[in-house]
Amino acid sequence: MSAKTKKKVLAQSLKKLGEGVYNQLFEGDFPWIRMPSRSIQNIHYDRTLRQYVLGDKNVRRSTRNIRHLRPFTQLIWTAYIAQMLGSQGKTSTLRDVYYMAQSDEVHFKDQMESDGTITDLETVLGFAREDFHIFPEERSSIFGDLTIEYTVPGYEGNRLSLTSHPDGLVIGPTLTSAEFIKCNADKVIVIEKGAMFTRFVEEKAHQKFRSLLIHTMGQPPRATRHLIRRLNHELGLPIYVFTDADPWGMHIAAVIISGSANAAHLRELTTPDAKWSGVWATDIEKYKLPSDPLTELDVKRLHELRRDPRYAGEPWQREVEAFLRFKRKSEQEAFSRYGLSYIVDKYLPAKLK
Amino acid sequence: MSAKTKKKVLAQSLKKLGEGVYNQLFEGDFPWIRMPSRSIQNIHYDRTLRQYVLGDKNVRRSTRNIRHLRPFTQLIWTAYIAQMLGSQGKTSTLRDVYYMAQSDEVHFKDQMESDGTITDLETVLGFAREDFHIFPEERSSIFGDLTIEYTVPGYEGNRLSLTSHPDGLVIGPTLTSAEFIKCNADKVIVIEKGAMFTRFVEEKAHQKFRSLLIHTMGQPPRATRHLIRRLNHELGLPIYVFTDADPWGMHIAAVIISGSANAAHLRELTTPDAKWSGVWATDIEKYKLPSDPLTELDVKRLHELRRDPRYAGEPWQREVEAFLRFKRKSEQEAFSRYGLSYIVDKYLPAKLK
Repeated sequence: MSAKTKKKVLAQSLKKLGEGVYNQLFEGDFPWIRMPSRSIQNIHYDRTLRQYVLGDKNVRRSTRNIRHLRPFTQLIWTAYIAQMLGSQGKTSTLRDVYYMAQSDEVHFKDQMESDGTITDLETVLGFAREDFHIFPEERSSIFGDLTIEYTVPGYEGNRLSLTSHPDGLVIGPTLTSAEFIKCNADKVIVIEKGAMFTRFVEEKAHQKFRSLLIHTMGQPPRATRHLIRRLNHELGLPIYVFTDADPWGMHIAAVIISGSANAAHLRELTTPDAKWSGVWATDIEKYKLPSDPLTELDVKRLHELRRDPRYAGEPWQREVEAFLRFKRKSEQEAFSRYGLSYIVDKYLPAKLK
Repeated sequence: MSAKTKKKVLAQSLKKLGEGVYNQLFEGDFPWIRMPSRSIQNIHYDRTLRQYVLGDKNVRRSTRNIRHLRPFTQLIWTAYIAQMLGSQGKTSTLRDVYYMAQSDEVHFKDQMESDGTITDLETVLGFAREDFHIFPEERSSIFGDLTIEYTVPGYEGNRLSLTSHPDGLVIGPTLTSAEFIKCNADKVIVIEKGAMFTRFVEEKAHQKFRSLLIHTMGQPPRATRHLIRRLNHELGLPIYVFTDADPWGMHIAAVIISGSANAAHLRELTTPDAKWSGVWATDIEKYKLPSDPLTELDVKRLHELRRDPRYAGEPWQREVEAFLRFKRKSEQEAFSRYGLSYIVDKYLPAKLK
């Protein structure tokens, strides 16, 4: 779905939600809604979709029930905020929404409660909170031969080539909602570390491999995961994820590919066809990389990942076992022992094959 | 000093360092160098410069002394790396340099040792490691009516307006080394939080206040502190820093203004005329902001700051006392209780006056 179409469909969904409540009131009914349950018992890993999904269990929230009155009101107020932000073209954060409630005298006992209500609205409408203009605080960045066209007020119709700034363009609300106009890249390389992103630009990895480069800044913000999905789905670009060779780097790739259980109600944040391309545990030995011993926490994490459904199949099982066998971890920068250009000139071509 | 001039001066300094060693060898001397001592006893706060500086104590490092042989060799190798990075136009990180030493079989027992050697080189030459193309992993961003011209190979002579991407342009090696060509802003507003930076762009703070907007992402990376200084010194723009109303936000402003004791050997990272413009402890009461109680750690930190020489004078002393009196803290987003545009439409004009 293009950014413009999506905006329209969301506006319609919000209107329909409001009309539903009005109609129930006109008919003398206590307003109620039904939505999928997000309880742990209703979250399953779907092997076909290769992500967590919600099961068939529904919950009904009715204003006839005095205990439901408060969450129902909070939900409708949140829908009003989503409509307001969308129509005014303003963005906000989870934290902002919590404070905005105070001015409208809608009571949330803490931010956890308002965050939960925003997740309820995601579940009811099937849209991500970024579509309601509620954005994460974190920002990652992109560089490469893709021309985008902005859709936000004030910049609508402006075009920008993502090669225009070699330090990278921030992936925020305007980039995420932009249309893709022209792309001369044929793949996307996603990179965990900022310094490595800069290295790839300097070594012209974007030209040598005709690739867009994305810097995740550790675990990527949801807006970045959504952009990666769009590049894969709308432009058909294969996605290669490069991380540090440790359980945390590996999990950055797993979350880009298969998402998280917390977002089982959404389909817009995963890229099941993305590939984790390194740095693998087995690369530590193969390339004789400088390495550090795994910590106790690393080992504990590996045992958790071993049982995680996202880690079924290869390269996951093989690499988890390799980490546990070698008991070592390594970083992307470790390739610098062979000179600064080695990772782009030697390692990357071998991996992309 | 413009970016181009600086590059030339640094190359000359490195050459001179090398020539010194050669000359000593030709004269049959054991090579040695003298540099300012960075021991705590030799670090003073200078009230005129309004930053930490090194005193008169020097250390002499001579290869005649067997204990000095190793650090001397490490230092000269690091100078070679700085020369190589500069002449090839490549960037790296502290971590990279540690790994690169392994390929040249120069031994550092850990990264702390190689980091220390890089700081020695800063002290010897009076240049920051960013000038040696050794950059931090962290990245912050900028937006506003400033046109820059790149000086790095491959992009040399290209110009870019920093209004071209509303989500922000990353402040990395190419932006930091760019020349300022044309600026229609008359001030700089530095903002702690990413979401607030986006808010300021959306509410057109850059037009309403003719300002450049810089997002620090918490404590700003050194490259960003250096850029802020250049905007103040080269373009004469006043700098206003907006942070959360807590000891950590206040200290972000203090470090932008007066730097840190660790960088007492450098002059390029401070902006003594920058102003901390809020959110102040006294604003919490004045604007009736939603607030949270100070934690024990917050209170401990305030007692430290009270004795910190960078906190002499106002608004520092008044605000430290106000925090300790109210025992509350607040965030930039707390203004959202008055609607999303309040901070730009009401608070900011009052503060900039």
